[in-house]
Amino acid sequence: MSIVPKQHFNKSNMNLFRPDVDRVAGYIPGEQPQESGWVKLNTNENPYPPSPQVVEAIAEAAGGRLNVYPDPLATRFRRRAAELLDVDPDWILPANGSDENLTILIRSFVDPGELVSYPYPSYTLYKTLAELQGAEHEQLPLNADWSWNYQLAEPIVERSKLVFVPNPNSPSGNLWSNDDISRLIPRRGILVLDEAYVDFSDAALGIKMLSCEAGNRIVITRTLSKSYSLAGMRFGFAIACPELIFGMRKVKDSYNCNALSLAAAVAALEDIPWMQRNVQNIQNTRVHLTGQLERLGFDVVHSQANFVWATHSNRLHKVIYESLKQRRILVRYMHFYDKMSTDTPEIDGLRITVGTDSEIDRLLQALEIIV
Amino acid sequence: MSIVPKQHFNKSNMNLFRPDVDRVAGYIPGEQPQESGWVKLNTNENPYPPSPQVVEAIAEAAGGRLNVYPDPLATRFRRRAAELLDVDPDWILPANGSDENLTILIRSFVDPGELVSYPYPSYTLYKTLAELQGAEHEQLPLNADWSWNYQLAEPIVERSKLVFVPNPNSPSGNLWSNDDISRLIPRRGILVLDEAYVDFSDAALGIKMLSCEAGNRIVITRTLSKSYSLAGMRFGFAIACPELIFGMRKVKDSYNCNALSLAAAVAALEDIPWMQRNVQNIQNTRVHLTGQLERLGFDVVHSQANFVWATHSNRLHKVIYESLKQRRILVRYMHFYDKMSTDTPEIDGLRITVGTDSEIDRLLQALEIIV
Repeated sequence: MSIVPKQHFNKSNMNLFRPDVDRVAGYIPGEQPQESGWVKLNTNENPYPPSPQVVEAIAEAAGGRLNVYPDPLATRFRRRAAELLDVDPDWILPANGSDENLTILIRSFVDPGELVSYPYPSYTLYKTLAELQGAEHEQLPLNADWSWNYQLAEPIVERSKLVFVPNPNSPSGNLWSNDDISRLIPRRGILVLDEAYVDFSDAALGIKMLSCEAGNRIVITRTLSKSYSLAGMRFGFAIACPELIFGMRKVKDSYNCNALSLAAAVAALEDIPWMQRNVQNIQNTRVHLTGQLERLGFDVVHSQANFVWATHSNRLHKVIYESLKQRRILVRYMHFYDKMSTDTPEIDGLRITVGTDSEIDRLLQALEIIV
Repeated sequence: MSIVPKQHFNKSNMNLFRPDVDRVAGYIPGEQPQESGWVKLNTNENPYPPSPQVVEAIAEAAGGRLNVYPDPLATRFRRRAAELLDVDPDWILPANGSDENLTILIRSFVDPGELVSYPYPSYTLYKTLAELQGAEHEQLPLNADWSWNYQLAEPIVERSKLVFVPNPNSPSGNLWSNDDISRLIPRRGILVLDEAYVDFSDAALGIKMLSCEAGNRIVITRTLSKSYSLAGMRFGFAIACPELIFGMRKVKDSYNCNALSLAAAVAALEDIPWMQRNVQNIQNTRVHLTGQLERLGFDVVHSQANFVWATHSNRLHKVIYESLKQRRILVRYMHFYDKMSTDTPEIDGLRITVGTDSEIDRLLQALEIIV
């Protein structure tokens, strides 16, 4: 490789970017301290390791033929996922993490100037993706108890080309029913049901909606990052009718999933009991965490995810977050500057990932002192 | 997971896709037979395995903490690549394969209706990406000897927001000089120098151009797929001034490279002698292959890549391709329906990847019979 002098250009002819890109601040991922010793409850990672079968499958694939391209159609993975979900493989589109599928969706369906909507507060990436695409974007109003304000939301849904709805939602962790969701399918657009956290809920019913009347305008996205303990692996998949999957496939890079993540994903879906055991542990810890937070004076939304949304009526959330951070415990402090609806106040709070029992004990001990 | 009946929707209300997506046929990757026994010389893969250090690094990372997100800034990789290239880490943007960087580039710089141009024939993905972005696209004319037709090309470059130039080019394998390249930098746009194959050339001089007057409008893309034998791994990186990298980073998914590919990429760059030895073997085989093809009556472009472009003046290329395929030898038959320039004929030919000596011997033995 050759040599170029270390130098920086400070010339200001950098207005070559698309104005939409210039304007975007960019999505800011949660803090990722690189040293050990932290209790990390800020980015909704699963505290348990993935199945040993996954680790074996990766090692085997690494010793295989990495010099050749992976299967661009992800045939083995799609077959396995299809079996589990009882659909045909044509209903499955794997991606390099669920984030990539969200990007593919917006690039597939939304032209500049068309409307993208999503509940507020929810995953902040939806807005960033809409901005990058040059799309219009609007927030779908929720009530203070995280139920839908349909009177305000439905007219926006009707004008939308694409609606993102995470279910369970983040940061709240609540799960909306299929009846709720069915009112959010735009008549001339796509509903994306982002089910990143659905395995932590009592019932994953969203997929039933694919067979409803409007099911061919619904795309469900899933990820192996959370319930399958594979955030480091980057693997997600979309489920939708073949006509939608066919078009989305044209937008993705041909070889978007590498040989190792494909092998890992197949192995992960072949060890469902391992995933379910970890999910059960997290659900148990969630009950404990919720009860103890309430005892300490927090209001906690009934969570169906691997995190809880906690607010305290007479302590400053930012101060609690900072005090925890001083003790090397990271939770996510979130402040939402817009209102959920016209009649709700501005909110902030703490989103706390459900870690192991011992991590949660350390958190609770610290909170006993702080609040 | 839940159950949805196996069914297909045949309703034709599928006009929800962006018209640009509807129009695109989609990039068609080279044939990837899944059975063994094929001599596969059609997708420019490196026939040699990656460094054992890479395989070790992957196994180690797989046993590590796959449940947590990878470093979104790819700090270790950027530091290592920066050392090798003698630039600051801020000059490096890693991606999930070079294809992802090409997508990021077009989404960063090209608004719908703006012009993207590229030499013809070259990598067919450039056109697909332009179409998906709703951009205009034009072919930059070449002469029949693969030199530039500047009289026709320069006015198109001047109107371009983004110019893609692969160097060495595909399918021809020829390398253009920096003097050639310097005439292809648009005054109000970006030149992307796609150096996927540059390690197989005698001199990788493109990076010197980053310090020229117009260097802050140049982005170089590299990949580990070819010279580092890691096509299955999906890892590429862009090199450009920090202002460009900063903006491009906003467009990419936060966690676009997974923990395993990051570990593999660092390990690959730490065993340069392994890569160079394989490159040397391929260069030697390329000389042998070129000489033998010429002996058999082929015209072969002087290649600086890991493939050669061969044409035969009195045999049908399609027939040769089919005859080889019957013998389980895959090469790439390519037909270019547009003309390179107004005064050149329509061309077709065979793009043959430089495999191992024994693979090339099997090819040559078959060709002895066929032509």
